[in-house]
Parts: sequence; C-alpha cells; structure tokens
Amino acid sequence: MPQLAPHPNRLLPADPGTRDIARRLYAEVSGLPIISPHGHVPPEWLAQDIPFSDPTTLLISPDHYVTRLMHSAGVDLAALGVGGSELDEAGKRAAWRLFCEHWPVYRGTAIRFWMEAELHDIFGVTERPSAETADAIYGQIAAALATPEFRPRALFERFGIEIIATTDDPCDDLHHHDALAADESFAGRVMPTFRPDRYLEPGREGWSELVDALGEAAGVDTGTYAGFREALATRRQYFKDHGAVSTDHSHADVVTLVLDDAEAHRLFARCRSGEANADEATALRRFLLVEMARMAVDDGLVMTLHPAVARNHSQASFNRFGADTGCDIPIAVEWTTGLQSLLAEVGLAPGFQVVLFTLDGDTFSREIAPLAGFYPSVFAGAPWWFLDAPDAIRRFQGAVSDIAGFSRMSGFIDDTRAFCSIPARHDLSRRLDCAFLAELVATHRLEEDEALDTARALVATNPRKAFKL
Amino acid sequence: MPQLAPHPNRLLPADPGTRDIARRLYAEVSGLPIISPHGHVPPEWLAQDIPFSDPTTLLISPDHYVTRLMHSAGVDLAALGVGGSELDEAGKRAAWRLFCEHWPVYRGTAIRFWMEAELHDIFGVTERPSAETADAIYGQIAAALATPEFRPRALFERFGIEIIATTDDPCDDLHHHDALAADESFAGRVMPTFRPDRYLEPGREGWSELVDALGEAAGVDTGTYAGFREALATRRQYFKDHGAVSTDHSHADVVTLVLDDAEAHRLFARCRSGEANADEATALRRFLLVEMARMAVDDGLVMTLHPAVARNHSQASFNRFGADTGCDIPIAVEWTTGLQSLLAEVGLAPGFQVVLFTLDGDTFSREIAPLAGFYPSVFAGAPWWFLDAPDAIRRFQGAVSDIAGFSRMSGFIDDTRAFCSIPARHDLSRRLDCAFLAELVATHRLEEDEALDTARALVATNPRKAFKL
Amino acid sequence: MPQLAPHPNRLLPADPGTRDIARRLYAEVSGLPIISPHGHVPPEWLAQDIPFSDPTTLLISPDHYVTRLMHSAGVDLAALGVGGSELDEAGKRAAWRLFCEHWPVYRGTAIRFWMEAELHDIFGVTERPSAETADAIYGQIAAALATPEFRPRALFERFGIEIIATTDDPCDDLHHHDALAADESFAGRVMPTFRPDRYLEPGREGWSELVDALGEAAGVDTGTYAGFREALATRRQYFKDHGAVSTDHSHADVVTLVLDDAEAHRLFARCRSGEANADEATALRRFLLVEMARMAVDDGLVMTLHPAVARNHSQASFNRFGADTGCDIPIAVEWTTGLQSLLAEVGLAPGFQVVLFTLDGDTFSREIAPLAGFYPSVFAGAPWWFLDAPDAIRRFQGAVSDIAGFSRMSGFIDDTRAFCSIPARHDLSRRLDCAFLAELVATHRLEEDEALDTARALVATNPRKAFKL
Repeated sequence: MPQLAPHPNRLLPADPGTRDIARRLYAEVSGLPIISPHGHVPPEWLAQDIPFSDPTTLLISPDHYVTRLMHSAGVDLAALGVGGSELDEAGKRAAWRLFCEHWPVYRGTAIRFWMEAELHDIFGVTERPSAETADAIYGQIAAALATPEFRPRALFERFGIEIIATTDDPCDDLHHHDALAADESFAGRVMPTFRPDRYLEPGREGWSELVDALGEAAGVDTGTYAGFREALATRRQYFKDHGAVSTDHSHADVVTLVLDDAEAHRLFARCRSGEANADEATALRRFLLVEMARMAVDDGLVMTLHPAVARNHSQASFNRFGADTGCDIPIAVEWTTGLQSLLAEVGLAPGFQVVLFTLDGDTFSREIAPLAGFYPSVFAGAPWWFLDAPDAIRRFQGAVSDIAGFSRMSGFIDDTRAFCSIPARHDLSRRLDCAFLAELVATHRLEEDEALDTARALVATNPRKAFKL
Repeated sequence: MPQLAPHPNRLLPADPGTRDIARRLYAEVSGLPIISPHGHVPPEWLAQDIPFSDPTTLLISPDHYVTRLMHSAGVDLAALGVGGSELDEAGKRAAWRLFCEHWPVYRGTAIRFWMEAELHDIFGVTERPSAETADAIYGQIAAALATPEFRPRALFERFGIEIIATTDDPCDDLHHHDALAADESFAGRVMPTFRPDRYLEPGREGWSELVDALGEAAGVDTGTYAGFREALATRRQYFKDHGAVSTDHSHADVVTLVLDDAEAHRLFARCRSGEANADEATALRRFLLVEMARMAVDDGLVMTLHPAVARNHSQASFNRFGADTGCDIPIAVEWTTGLQSLLAEVGLAPGFQVVLFTLDGDTFSREIAPLAGFYPSVFAGAPWWFLDAPDAIRRFQGAVSDIAGFSRMSGFIDDTRAFCSIPARHDLSRRLDCAFLAELVATHRLEEDEALDTARALVATNPRKAFKL
Repeated sequence: MPQLAPHPNRLLPADPGTRDIARRLYAEVSGLPIISPHGHVPPEWLAQDIPFSDPTTLLISPDHYVTRLMHSAGVDLAALGVGGSELDEAGKRAAWRLFCEHWPVYRGTAIRFWMEAELHDIFGVTERPSAETADAIYGQIAAALATPEFRPRALFERFGIEIIATTDDPCDDLHHHDALAADESFAGRVMPTFRPDRYLEPGREGWSELVDALGEAAGVDTGTYAGFREALATRRQYFKDHGAVSTDHSHADVVTLVLDDAEAHRLFARCRSGEANADEATALRRFLLVEMARMAVDDGLVMTLHPAVARNHSQASFNRFGADTGCDIPIAVEWTTGLQSLLAEVGLAPGFQVVLFTLDGDTFSREIAPLAGFYPSVFAGAPWWFLDAPDAIRRFQGAVSDIAGFSRMSGFIDDTRAFCSIPARHDLSRRLDCAFLAELVATHRLEEDEALDTARALVATNPRKAFKL
C-alpha cells in the first residue's frame, strides 16, 4: 500500500547546495508561532470549543478548494455535503471515499500539500488516500476527533497559533470574541475583522434593509448619508473596541472616487429610495471605499483589499448550494489609476495602512510593488486564494522583491475557513520563503545572515507591521 | 564543421538529481503513440499519399513560424515562397540557403528545437545549417523525399501517429476523410474538425454569400435565422458522421450573449440584408457562439476556443501574401465574464466540453485554471501557438497545476500544418512534462509513481478525455 | 562587522554545472566596452568635468530608485535632499546615515546589487552599510570624490563606456554635446536623444507656449500645423546633425491614429486656440506619434517607446518635490492594436526602426515578441525601469527568446541618471544573459559556441543594430 510520508525537505530547492541553505533557514523559522491576521474561522468554534463531528464535515464539505476540484471531475457537490445539505453517516463516509478516490486530481496543487500535512501531521495517517484506504482513514480521523486532544482549543494550542483574525459582519455583536477575551483559560488572541462589503454596495439587492439594520446596530438613524456614515464609524469603533485591527473589502474593482458632501447625500438618498441607476450606485460604492479610508485615518484600522472576483459565476450552482462553494472566478484588476483618488486623500497620512491582495499576477510587478515601494501606507499582500500555491508564490516573491524588496510584503495570511489547514498553509509559506531566500544566497545576492533575518521578519515582523499587531 | 547532434537529455532539468528523475519518466512516455486532436495538416496529403516535392516547399514556405523570423531579419517573404508564389528550383535552393544562413535567429525558440529534430531524426542531417552546409543539406533531404519511405503515409506510420485531426470548412464534403476511412491499407485515424468562424461573423465581408453556400451544402434554405441554425446543425452532424469530434472557434474575443429567438431572427435578417451596424453584427456573432455550445450539448462535439488574435496585422503583407503567413498578433483576452453567458446555458450540462486556449499568459492562473477547476465542462488547453515553447509551457504548467492540478489539462495539441514537425512538437511537450513532474518529485511534492502516472495521463488519457476520443 | 564583498559568481546559476558554463560565457563578455544608447546622465557633467560634490548628492538625492524605498519605509524625501531642496553638510551626512540604516530594505532588489557594486568596486568600501558604518563610508567616498580619479571623465574612462546617450529637450542647443565632440582630450561618444513628449501632448498645460518656443528654436512659424511639423522635422535634423541616433517617446498609451492633412490642421488650430476638448487633444497626440514615425523614415532616427506610466501619481508629493522623484506608477499597455496604424504606415519601410519598452510584463510574450518576430522594424526593448531586475529580466529572456529568439532584442539600456550605477547595471545584465544562456546550454537547447556568440551579440551587436550605431 503506498505510504503517506511527507518528506522533511518538501518544497525546498532541488539543487543540493541551495537546499542546504534553505534547510538552515527553515530550521530557524519553522517553529515560530503562527500569526494569522486574516481568515475565516468561525469564532464560535473556539469560544464554545465544540468537538468536530466527523472527517467529512471538518475537512471536505466546507472547503471549496477541496470540493471544487472534485466537482470539476464530475462529482455532484451535494454528494460532498456542500452548501449545508446535511449528510447522514453513510453519506459522510461516501463523501470521504469520493475524496480519497479523487486524491490524484490534487497532484501539483497546494491542496495536496495542505491535505497531506493535515492527514499525516495532525491525524497520523500514514497510508495514501485511495478507494482502498478511505474507510480506514475515515475511522482513524473520526476516532481522533472524539478525543479531547482534537477539540478546537487543543488544536489551536498544538498548532502554535498566537493570533488569529476572524471575518465578521458589521452588525455582529462579537459576543464570541468577548467570551474568548474574558476566558482566562484561553491564551490565544482572536480578533474580529470588520467586513462591510454588503453595506457598501448600494446596487445590491436588499441594500436598503442592510442600511436599516446597520443603523439599528449602531443606534444611529441611517435615513441620511450623514447618519449612515456615522453608523459605519460607530460600528468600526465597536469592532476596534473588541479587538479588531483591520477592515476587509472585496468589491468588483478598486476604482475610487471622491464626492462632495452634497453629492454623497444626493446619491445616498436616491439609492435608499430605489431610484438610483447602476452608475449612481457604483459611484456611491466607489466613494464609500474612500470614506472607509478616511475613517481608517481616524480610527487606525488597517484596510485590506481583496477585489476583482466574479462571485457565484454559475448561477445554477449558487442557487443549489449558495455562496462560497467554489464558483467564484477572478477577473482582471487595475490598481494604479483605480486607487489614485483614495491615495491622494490618505496615501501619505500618518498611520493609514492598506494591504493590496490580487488574483491578477501581472499586477504584482506592474502595479502593486511599485505602489508599495513608494507609499508608506501601501503593503503588497501575500499571494491570495488561487495564488497561494508554490508556483504563484514564487512569481510573487520574484516580482515584488525585485522592485520593493521584502519589507513591503504583508507577510503570509491564510485567509481560510479550513481550521486544520492553518499550520500547513503557514508551513508552506515558510518553506517557500526559505527556498526563495536560499536562491538569493546561492546566487550571492544576499548573505546568509541577511536571508535568515528576512525569513524571520516575513513570519514575525512583517505581519505585525502591516496589521499593526 | 559544427555538428547537429540533438542531445538525448535536451530540455530535461540541469540539476543532476532532478534530471535522473526526468529521464526515468521520459523513458516511459517518449515512445507512446501520438494523439493529435487539433491541427492543420491537409487531409489530401494522406488521402493521396503524394510525395513531398522538395525541402523548401515542405519545411519552409508554408511554415509561418519559420518564415516570420527570417522576415523580421529582413528577408522578403517572396524569396521564401510564402503565399503561393511558386519558386523555381533555383529559388527553392536559394530559399533554403537563406534559412540555413539564418539558423542563428532561431536560437532559444521552439522552432530551433523542432527543426533540429526534424533535420536530424527524420532526414539524418548531422551538420549544423549554415551558408556552407545549406546546399548539401538540401540535397540530402531532397534525395530522401524522392524515396517511398518519405511519402506522407510512411512518415505518418514512422511518426507513430495514432489519431490526427484536420481543420475543415463546414461546407467541405470531407471526401478525403471518407477515402482514408475506407482505405484498408491505412490504419491511422484522420478526423475532420468543424471550423465555422467565417460563417459566424456577420460583420465580415462576404458573409451573406457564405451563408448561402452553407445552405446549399446543408440542403436547407438559410434565408431566415431558423434555416441558418438548421444548416449549421446539419453540417455539424455531417462532420460528426464523418469522424469529427470537435468544432473550433477563433474570434476576436470570447464574449457570449444570449438572445431570444425573435431578436436572433431580427439581427440575422438585418445582417443578411446588409443593414446591420457593427454592434449588431457583433451581437449576433456572440450569440452564435452560444448557439454552437447549445448544439454541442445536442450532438456531443467538443468546442475548442482559440480567440484573441489580430489577424493579418499588416495589411500590406496580407495583400502580398495572404492569410496565415506570419503577421497575426495576439491581443488580450477576458474569459471570466465573457464566457459567463455561455456557461450559464451549458457549463453544467452533461457531455458538454469546451477547451480554452490562450495567447494571454496572465489568464492561465487568473481565469482559465479557476474555470477549469470548477466546471466539469471546461478544460485548460495546452499552451498554444506563440506559447508552445519551453518557457511559456513552464509558465502554463506552474500556473495551471497550482490551481487545477493536471487532470483539467487538455493534453498537448500541435496545431500545426508542418507535418514533419509533429513528432518533435509532441516530443518537446513530453520532455517538458517530464521535466516539470521531475521538479515536483525532486521537491517532494509528488512521489515518483504519481509523477509517472501523470506523465502517462498527459500523453494518453487527458487528450482522450478532453476530445472524447 | 559584516563585510561588503560582492562574490565573483553573483547572479550566476546555483547549479554547479550550469554555473561553470555561465562563468565561461561571462569571462568573455564582462570586459567588453559599455554601449549605453538610452539614458539620462546630464551632458554637462562630462562636458565640464566638474567634480562630484559628496556621496549624498551623487548617490542618494537624485536617484529615485534609492529614495522611493526609503520613502515607503517612512523617511521624508526632504531629509534625503530630493527635489532640489539643498542639504547642508550635516544634512547630507544625516541622509547618508538614513540610507545606510535602511540597507536591509533593498534586499532582493536590483538596487542592492548596483549599490553594492558601486560602493565596493568604485569606492573600495568593504564594510556593509549600517548605522555603525555610515559615517566612515561617507568619509571614504567623500575623500575619493575629492581626487582627480573620481571626476566624471576619469570615471567615464574607468567604466569602459564607449558610447552614451543623453536625453534632451527638442529646443536644447546641444552645446555640451558640441563641446564634447570638439574636445580632442575626450575620446567617448556622447549622443543627444530627441525627447519631444511635452511638445506632442496638446492636452498638457502650457503646450501652446512650448509650440511657440519650438518655432523659435527651429526658426519656423508654428502658427499652423504645417509650420509645427516643419519645426519638429528641423529640430530632429538638428539633433541628428549633433550626433543623435534616436528619438524617445513616453505617453500614456501607444494608440496611434492617422489623420488627413485637413483634420490635422483643424485639430492643431483648435488646440492652439485652447478650444480643443480632451478627445481632440488626444487624437492629435496620437497622430503626432505617427508623424514622428514618418519623419523617422525620412531622417533615419530610431524611435524608442516607453509608454504607460502614471506620472506623479501622488499630487502632494509632486507638489513638494517635483517630477521624477519616485511616484510614477505603471499602468497596463496595449501594443497590438495601438501600434497598428503606425506600423501600417511605416512598419515595413526600409530603415524604419522602433524599440518597444514596457512595464507590463504580460505583453512580453503576448504582443512585443510577436511584433518583433514579424516586423523587421520592431525590436523588443530590454526590461525597463521597474523591470530591470533579475526576476523580471529572467521573465523577459524566457518570454521573448521563446518566440523571437535573441536577434530581435535591443540589447541592454541602462536608462539611468545615476552615473556611478552604469557599470553595475550593464554588469547585472551581462551576468543574467550568461546565466540564461548557460541554462539553454545545460539543457542542451544550444551548443556552448552558440551561447557565447549570442552573449557577445547581446552586448555588442544588438544595441548597434537596434540603435543604428
């Protein structure tokens, strides 16, 4: 039976001399605590420390990275428990078997690296997933999950997570975060993140109701633009008071637009009354991103931008399974002229910080690194989502370091809801950082002490700086 | 005299350990039969098995890869016999000499690899092309071509071609394909491909006459949209009945648009009467691609998309030499929103398959791999045309495997009218596949048995699946 | 104290076998004379041979590569003497200290490579820059600069510069170039470059006054378009008569447009009278680039295009420090359709030559290499500005050589105003050329004699051909 035995040198360079350098670097950073300043783990998992139910519900059903490739291979997402369709025990075992049978489709992907590490390092699996081994592996993981050592908080500690951020609705009362902060038995730091997208898109169905809800949450009348703005500022402050360090924004583009107060009020009123056309709604949305930046100058929250994804590309799949189930597809993005209005307002303002994430690799060197290499406020966000894999990370490393060095990089973010993948994701990033830095040492572009200092900074210093931790 | 001696390890990794892995992989796939599901070899060559006339007419004049680089170096295309201007024997020898003198301009290109393999492996040339060796090489090849071993069918067999597709006009009666299929002395499979571009571009000069001709070929009155649609479906079925497995489409973009029946009829009528403006013609063209996809659901033919090339960029060169003579230049392409309407109609339909080819490398990771990694119907087409060379292929391998693994790749297509380059093109692809997979093994991302299985799949399984062979 | 000791093998491949090949190639080209056909060194430095004043004024204040990364790290540009704000001696020493303290921010960039070479190879610095070593290094360089061996002409000779181009205003009388040409004690060739951007942008503030000034310089009445055209042709000829070989153009895009004479006159008149709208001004600008190309056919000057940069992205920074101080940010560019009108006019004209430079790396393979691989007039410009660093150069090498080989590359241009960085910039390019060619030899894509011939051509032949030297 083929073994599952992750090699200690995986992802390190093949050239023996370069690999030796990389191994020395990796030895110094592999054990550092995990800082995860942007992600999607539900805070209640940690607050309530509820045991994970089973392998499929933990590792398959909610992970669109894992399910989308099976879908592309012809598997019905319903058979994997995607989108909340509850599977019974037989269904869960069948879903797990499908996953193990499809193990070859992950070859070459980051998913393969993560899952291999999760199965082996966390659950002790030593046989390669396949139709033959599926049931035994399921049983092995299920047995582990039934023990206290595999409850969320125990794993949190075992994973070496020092700080983790969740992503939260502006109306959320953050009681899970409060509970965690108040709980002396829990040493980790769990930060909320203010994610106001829905409230900032006046062209979206149901926007006006969201604005009402926001007003209620903030205790402010959102009938006028002034009230809406105040409600947003109030909720940002609420998040900050509950530990947040950043706000996250993912719109179709990053075009920004400055409106005067009268025009803002006028557009807001038209959007509220449902009379606005698409251009007006878009104009207000673009202005609201500038407003977020202005508020960031005031309250000090870091902005992170994750733009340019066509969400729910397949309407039919969305109708059956809902959002975040694997059919979001990237589109091109333009940063230089898009962000110019925003940066003209706040780009040089003390304390303002914005981290740019992209799925459009050509912009690493064309726009992001040049921006991050001039504006003290702009950071080059680590490779994100579809690009958080070895080849894309290498492209990012080369493109950004060429132009802006390492000090303008955000450090790694895992951006995941797959809790058990967090250590593997950070490990992948650390291995690839060491691999790249070893290349620079081997080609005499850096001394080894500089590479080591940089490797440590990318894990520990950069994210603290970019996210004000 | 410098030798022409292709090295057995060419294109395999330089690192000794990685190269050893690659050699083991390559040994297993280098001899597998060639499957060529998309290309431009004229079917009459095989049907009639006419001897090739001379080195220049075979290897230079019709190959725009070869002639365009000489043109950029200042050679008049007329001197190379481009565009049907018949050269006499002295002219052919002179053209061949020009090619040999320009041997250095191909350094670093895939053309160099192909041509080196063709000259050495097929014709036994052992001296490097140059002004000094040109005449001798010409004589050597000419002598070979006069023998039965170098007639098309003998080469077809020697090359190990199992299946090859041609590209054909929808009105073609496919009698060459019929003859080949009926010929018991010929064991290969030669499939036509339905290429309807000209009939689907109402904005093109002479479109209405083409629609008439299509009607005639189909035996259907194409005076109305309903008739036109029926004629297209009829001809598709005719192609399928004669062995076709795919239809090929190369328009300026891949924007798709759904029209209702009344609007389709209205636009068709306006285009037929010559009253349509450019926007109307474009709208109808974009809808017709959706119609092709709908028909593909019905008849099961695979769609291949090869968009976004500015054809005949130099009008002056086109006027002298005609189409396909080297001055087609790529432009950017957008897939995600462009294809959304088409995929909403058929993207999840059982049996529908579409293969996306691009000349815009940024879309490998940004759009194509994400689409192919979700939709069971979408395949990432192998690097195409200007990108079918080592560095671009490495970019494709990394970008697509990162996101969608290997199972969503179409497998190699040679897309060539240069018959003798076919083995070299497939060999280049196999070597580079093995080189890339060896990298993954050397960096412990795959076990060697998995790499070997993948190398075999890319040659044998993937094209069969993507093209329903 | 950490040493500054640039390694002889820096930038050469890590794999021992490939490195040996690269070393052999590099040994043959490292000492060849420098040809610098495009750059920004002020001609008066050489004409007057004025001693450089101090390390900061020479190496920091005017070099936006160096200052922008410190700015991104939070340093006020005023503290670095940017934008003409004169620093006193204490200020210069403080600025130097800031630079040395920020030495780590350059890790991974080309700036680090250049500066390391400048400090070590030119000034004999052997200690790594840091807060501790800053003052001593400053003193060491200042002492050197006070000696005759470090005056501009002595360095010019020591650097092995054979030819250098400056960049000049069309109204410049070029008296520094005249003086240099007439000076028998100076053996170098210093060529002006005609850079008419400001005169070709009718939408720009103050354009009409520039047109007046141009008329005065040319001795032609620029009241009509005919006069304006004649004035441009006259000044081009003046430049050519004073040694120029090229004209340089950097607009927001490379869209070109052919207007008939009447329309050109009409638009010119409207622009001159201040009545033109933005579209009319843009149309005229796009036509003027075609006119430049037509003149280039007549006078033989090579065109170089450096488009698609958002100049002075931060208005606030521009207001404080002026242009060219680090806040120009690239934008996407489109060449294929943009240049089509221009190339239709002159792309096949004997003697016409245009070199395409880009900051949009996706266009290397998508547009530039395909264009340069067909049109005898089009050359692929070496990686430029933000892309003149190892990783981007590797992307350029792979993307362009795949499609168009090496013969269509322009050869390296340093494009710099940082005089002391010129040898390091050319050395970086030569090392990376040898590294890439060694890869091709190690993977048996080229024989070593071919690689050596190519390495020499890239340094010596290609720039002479692309720039008609």
